[in-house]
Amino acid sequence: MSTLDPSQGDPSSPLKNNHPHKSRTIVMKFGGTSVGDLERIRNVAQKIKIEHDQGNRVAVVVSAMAGVTNQMVKYCFDLDTMPAMEEYDAVVASGEQVTSGLVAIALNKIGVPARSFQGWQVPLITDDAHGKAGIETVDGTAIKACLDQDIVPVIAGFQGVDRSGRIATLGRGGSDTSAVAFAAAIKADQCDIYTDVDGVYTTDPRIVTKAKKLDTITYEEMLELASVGAKVLQTRSVALAMREKVRVRVLSSFDKTDDSSGTIVVDENEGMEKELVAGIAYSLDESKISIRNVPDKPGVAAAIFGSLSGAGINVDMIVQSIGIDQSTNMTFTVSKGEEHRACQILDEHRKEIHFGEVSTSHDVVKISVVGVGMRSNTGVAATMFRTLAERGINVQVISTSEIKISVLINAEYTELAMRALHAAYGLDAEKEDC
Amino acid sequence: MSTLDPSQGDPSSPLKNNHPHKSRTIVMKFGGTSVGDLERIRNVAQKIKIEHDQGNRVAVVVSAMAGVTNQMVKYCFDLDTMPAMEEYDAVVASGEQVTSGLVAIALNKIGVPARSFQGWQVPLITDDAHGKAGIETVDGTAIKACLDQDIVPVIAGFQGVDRSGRIATLGRGGSDTSAVAFAAAIKADQCDIYTDVDGVYTTDPRIVTKAKKLDTITYEEMLELASVGAKVLQTRSVALAMREKVRVRVLSSFDKTDDSSGTIVVDENEGMEKELVAGIAYSLDESKISIRNVPDKPGVAAAIFGSLSGAGINVDMIVQSIGIDQSTNMTFTVSKGEEHRACQILDEHRKEIHFGEVSTSHDVVKISVVGVGMRSNTGVAATMFRTLAERGINVQVISTSEIKISVLINAEYTELAMRALHAAYGLDAEKEDC
Repeated sequence: MSTLDPSQGDPSSPLKNNHPHKSRTIVMKFGGTSVGDLERIRNVAQKIKIEHDQGNRVAVVVSAMAGVTNQMVKYCFDLDTMPAMEEYDAVVASGEQVTSGLVAIALNKIGVPARSFQGWQVPLITDDAHGKAGIETVDGTAIKACLDQDIVPVIAGFQGVDRSGRIATLGRGGSDTSAVAFAAAIKADQCDIYTDVDGVYTTDPRIVTKAKKLDTITYEEMLELASVGAKVLQTRSVALAMREKVRVRVLSSFDKTDDSSGTIVVDENEGMEKELVAGIAYSLDESKISIRNVPDKPGVAAAIFGSLSGAGINVDMIVQSIGIDQSTNMTFTVSKGEEHRACQILDEHRKEIHFGEVSTSHDVVKISVVGVGMRSNTGVAATMFRTLAERGINVQVISTSEIKISVLINAEYTELAMRALHAAYGLDAEKEDC
Repeated sequence: MSTLDPSQGDPSSPLKNNHPHKSRTIVMKFGGTSVGDLERIRNVAQKIKIEHDQGNRVAVVVSAMAGVTNQMVKYCFDLDTMPAMEEYDAVVASGEQVTSGLVAIALNKIGVPARSFQGWQVPLITDDAHGKAGIETVDGTAIKACLDQDIVPVIAGFQGVDRSGRIATLGRGGSDTSAVAFAAAIKADQCDIYTDVDGVYTTDPRIVTKAKKLDTITYEEMLELASVGAKVLQTRSVALAMREKVRVRVLSSFDKTDDSSGTIVVDENEGMEKELVAGIAYSLDESKISIRNVPDKPGVAAAIFGSLSGAGINVDMIVQSIGIDQSTNMTFTVSKGEEHRACQILDEHRKEIHFGEVSTSHDVVKISVVGVGMRSNTGVAATMFRTLAERGINVQVISTSEIKISVLINAEYTELAMRALHAAYGLDAEKEDC
């Protein structure tokens, strides 16, 4: 920069711009493992410095150091199995506070002006649902003022403040949502989510070695994948990005190569060539509940599922078998953690609804195929059922959305089914040796 | 309470008071060891509940869990030997935030309504001296509103917020100062400082087994004792208590007995019978610096000590020997940590001031005798010198204030001198066997 010939600049320009390429505003978000110790915090500072030195306006959002949030949560619940969530939030939010200060110190140390922001200093205003608060408003004024002075704001993710001035947290994984919300508030050109994987894959590479990293994925696909078990991005953050049209990129904070471009989450109409199926996800956190001899008359399903949803239990896949003798069997899934309470609630309503035996099964897996291409292609479901049938895998429950098909099968077929489907949809990477 | 005969109450009273004895407002402050783990936090909650159940209005101030602040300080200085102190403060203040939430949870658990307050939520406004900020104002409105609703406010000590809204900490031991400041702001009847000792002793019981716990001590005496090495209360907190006339009590949070009344710090004119000497303190954090052949003319002492104080070095005891040949020797003490820099600064000024050899000595101890009774009794100093002389202990430097005499002696005489002085001033406890 110091060798630039001043005559090359525009002499009529009223402002001297030391950063001729300064045009992009980027939010960089670093998760817990990326800031897990001081060495990693120094590494993160170097990554931020590279973006900053390229003349970008950089805002940073950080999580708590790996393990810290779990320790704080444990403290709270060891003291009281039902702590006041306002107090829980004050305790748990401390983790991100520490990281924000430490990253600012690490940046200053290498010559990048930086300062930390807590949620209440921004402020990021939330609703009153302490422990899993929703974002109401994000005031970008202070952050933008910081960027205008070429200072990197380092924002504590996961936290905000409710309207009465009490600290609130956004729930587990909420730092992704913070990052997207800040990107929207300051109209960032991109929101880079640095994590411990180098992007979004067609499926879990630990199970399917031929899994491919995707260069792009649509918001809708990412949303479905996130909600059915792919843990790369938190579902809420994807939904927010879709609504606010924030360009999100997922990439690794540990990748040393410069061409690690990660996966960009884009709008469907950005018109890139799309595979029929973007990815295949699985979830073992499923419990199947079957009810026998349910009266086959109007209002019964409403009574059963109304009682469950009234207790806050999320029912996922539902199937009802053809009835005989004016009764039917009903099967549905809940997460494993909610099975016990679901059965309790069913028991409480047994007499008024008059159903029979309730049985549960844990050894099931939900496998989901996701892709916006499904909208215009009816063959996706047929391929799925044929592929599974050829391996002798029985489908227990099916559920579909516009761009997703999920099946519940016996958990012992997880790997077999995943690999077969990955190949059937033409997703296998062309590797020399697998 | 439930057996109270309603006819005994005042039927004309417009308010029904469930707490007929509710009259006292108490601040309870718990230090780091008192809240060092969850079991101790539960213990603290029980102590608070006892005060609250007696009908008192109780506000609580807490330190970080023992060890947490040191860990946070280490993080900051490992990243940068000179971190931005605003960031240091954001990191370090997290410790008290955690404790405030946890104590509130523990209180709720045992049926005491409570809520946490961070410094910025009060707010406690500080100056800009981040890392060792001074308190400017404390707004007691929110705390008093909390007390009026019979909710126990649990305030994060040690922290506040500067006028630009950034987190600031009050320096090590600052939670004592926070507690006194809150006691003043809400006009508390008493400020109880719970710590790991059961009160203020006539001297260090680890050295002098006959040390006695004092029932009362004056602000002035406590101030002198705190400043010369007694680590029970932070000096600033005592000065603030004296200025604001806050009644401070020091007591143990581990003492299980009910009659552990600790030591009350009182105003001198409260007229209790006083010993001539209240206590004897010692400090091994002393370094003696001697300068030979200092020109014996006006302005030289000012030049030497002016250069040191300009560099922020605190010079304590000073003695100047009688000069011969128009030059003199000068001896003074600094804390051990400042010795190296003090010598550097002297070296820089050697040529302009024209002094000779500089020598240092570490094996010294400062022993201080403190008592308001000295004001009216001239025999205290004589007793001190005679007692030391009888044991063959040479006094190297002497300094005095209105209620204190300090001597610098060889460190190997520490225990001998302390025990001899303790006996000479009639402070020894009457124990059967020592």
